Amino acid sequence: MHAFEELSKEFAQKFSVRHFPEQPASLYDPNEYFLSLGGKRVRPILCLMGNELFDEIVPDAWHIATAIELFHNFTLIHDDIMDKAPLRRNMPTVHEKYGDSTALLAGDVMLVAAYDYLNKVKSEQQRKIISLFNRTAREVCEGQQIDMDFEKQETVHLDEYLRMIELKTSVLLAASLQMGAILGGASRGNQDDLYAFGRELGIAFQVQDDYLDCFGDPAKFGKQVGGDILANKKTFLVIKTLESGTPAQVKELKRLMQENPSDKVARVLAIFQEGGVDKWAFDLKEQYITSAFQHLDNIAVLSGRKEPLTKLAHFLVQRDY
Amino acid sequence: MHAFEELSKEFAQKFSVRHFPEQPASLYDPNEYFLSLGGKRVRPILCLMGNELFDEIVPDAWHIATAIELFHNFTLIHDDIMDKAPLRRNMPTVHEKYGDSTALLAGDVMLVAAYDYLNKVKSEQQRKIISLFNRTAREVCEGQQIDMDFEKQETVHLDEYLRMIELKTSVLLAASLQMGAILGGASRGNQDDLYAFGRELGIAFQVQDDYLDCFGDPAKFGKQVGGDILANKKTFLVIKTLESGTPAQVKELKRLMQENPSDKVARVLAIFQEGGVDKWAFDLKEQYITSAFQHLDNIAVLSGRKEPLTKLAHFLVQRDY
Repeated sequence: MHAFEELSKEFAQKFSVRHFPEQPASLYDPNEYFLSLGGKRVRPILCLMGNELFDEIVPDAWHIATAIELFHNFTLIHDDIMDKAPLRRNMPTVHEKYGDSTALLAGDVMLVAAYDYLNKVKSEQQRKIISLFNRTAREVCEGQQIDMDFEKQETVHLDEYLRMIELKTSVLLAASLQMGAILGGASRGNQDDLYAFGRELGIAFQVQDDYLDCFGDPAKFGKQVGGDILANKKTFLVIKTLESGTPAQVKELKRLMQENPSDKVARVLAIFQEGGVDKWAFDLKEQYITSAFQHLDNIAVLSGRKEPLTKLAHFLVQRDY
Repeated sequence: MHAFEELSKEFAQKFSVRHFPEQPASLYDPNEYFLSLGGKRVRPILCLMGNELFDEIVPDAWHIATAIELFHNFTLIHDDIMDKAPLRRNMPTVHEKYGDSTALLAGDVMLVAAYDYLNKVKSEQQRKIISLFNRTAREVCEGQQIDMDFEKQETVHLDEYLRMIELKTSVLLAASLQMGAILGGASRGNQDDLYAFGRELGIAFQVQDDYLDCFGDPAKFGKQVGGDILANKKTFLVIKTLESGTPAQVKELKRLMQENPSDKVARVLAIFQEGGVDKWAFDLKEQYITSAFQHLDNIAVLSGRKEPLTKLAHFLVQRDY
């Protein structure tokens, strides 16, 4: 069994090759630039771990892990265009550096490159894996569209928001694990539990992200506290307040979001604390973590094999900052 | 053997199903809208014809043809964003009707849908076919990027322009034929000749398109004559004039392109005729057609089997309007 750090190191090494032709440089340099910005590479490692949970890591797993990471980067490049984001990992985004049209095309060829790696898979399970990959790709696009739709909606219900997060963030984590498990010959039941583990963990991670934006230690969190509040993002905490706050809290929150006063962050945080939404979010995250680990427990392999995944999960969702 | 019209009718029927889920409608309706605008569906028919040139049409051919048509529509949706085109087939483009971000995402899921059809292919040749599909997809993106690069370049050489056209337009026609041929069990030599036939035919078609924009009969052509001239597009005729016109012609053409006088179209056409570029373009098209048919002749099947392709090729490139 390999720990996250070991797999991460090996994947980084294998992934640090050139994935695109040299020419035309105007198309391919943007992609090589974006990949060079790095990242935690969590999704491909989940694929490798999903594989190793049931068997030794097979060569195909590296192709699929690569395809997953390329797919993830494709979504980042295109999302950054849609969100008009100037920075990613503190560096200019592709569209910022090379223009929207090139970023669009560069993303497109990144997705094609992902499918080229999937086409190398020799396993008899190739068709099943690609089918899961495609379904997941569709769902991630759905999540992004629903997220954009929310910006135009006055009211977003908590269950709609949860479903959006599941599509936009969780399904790729879950499917990465399952693709590895399929390669490892896991039974359908074990696959389903592993998928559910990834899905619940992904939601817990997002709840935590929304929570830390408000109540994290800025020194550890590495981001300005209240960034989501300033951007009027509909986070778990905003949606919960709008859905079940007192009429006065709801009115005050809506007014602050509209008027953007200079002390907006402090006042929104006060509403969250007054309504107990901070505690609620913390508990919600715990619920999802508990549920995730129940699914991991259900998987019928020796508990020792689960250790790397358990450690990674704790690292991802139990940070105190 | 089936004629274009027969295959076209059958494909249209099979293709007129819903290709996307109902929800979220904000993501999938744009794609269903775009597909409902129709089109000649030349590429999927080429795949079917490439298959039937060597064997009876197998069920896989319909999956591949569908994937090709979805891929082509994906490129149109994304190209329209990049070109800021308001209309396609006289109807609003996807980004015009639904916004840039949705058009971007809708194109992305259209590409994923194409790969979902490829994943249904049962043939032992599936891996080869997907490999050709991926190479072609990359090349089409390269062609679009090079075309955009040309807009910023002062000088574009004829051979660079030819290569761009080959990538942007021809390779997909060529590959559609070859994918059908692979399914039909064609030898490598026959596949290569069929690919070359499609490639040369595609270039001939584009030369004709540039020519007709200047010298076509507007009543038959269905477009305003001189549209490319008004848009300052670097067509075969412009590039040839800039490359081998007299210094006076080159100077005058550049001046007209910069100053956009009201009689620009007539004066540019006069330069083309004075320099014999109209005749040159007509001859260039003929050369490519001749070369295309030589490759078709080379293919080692009874000439009767080639009839539908021969007729289609004549239809595509020998229109007198």
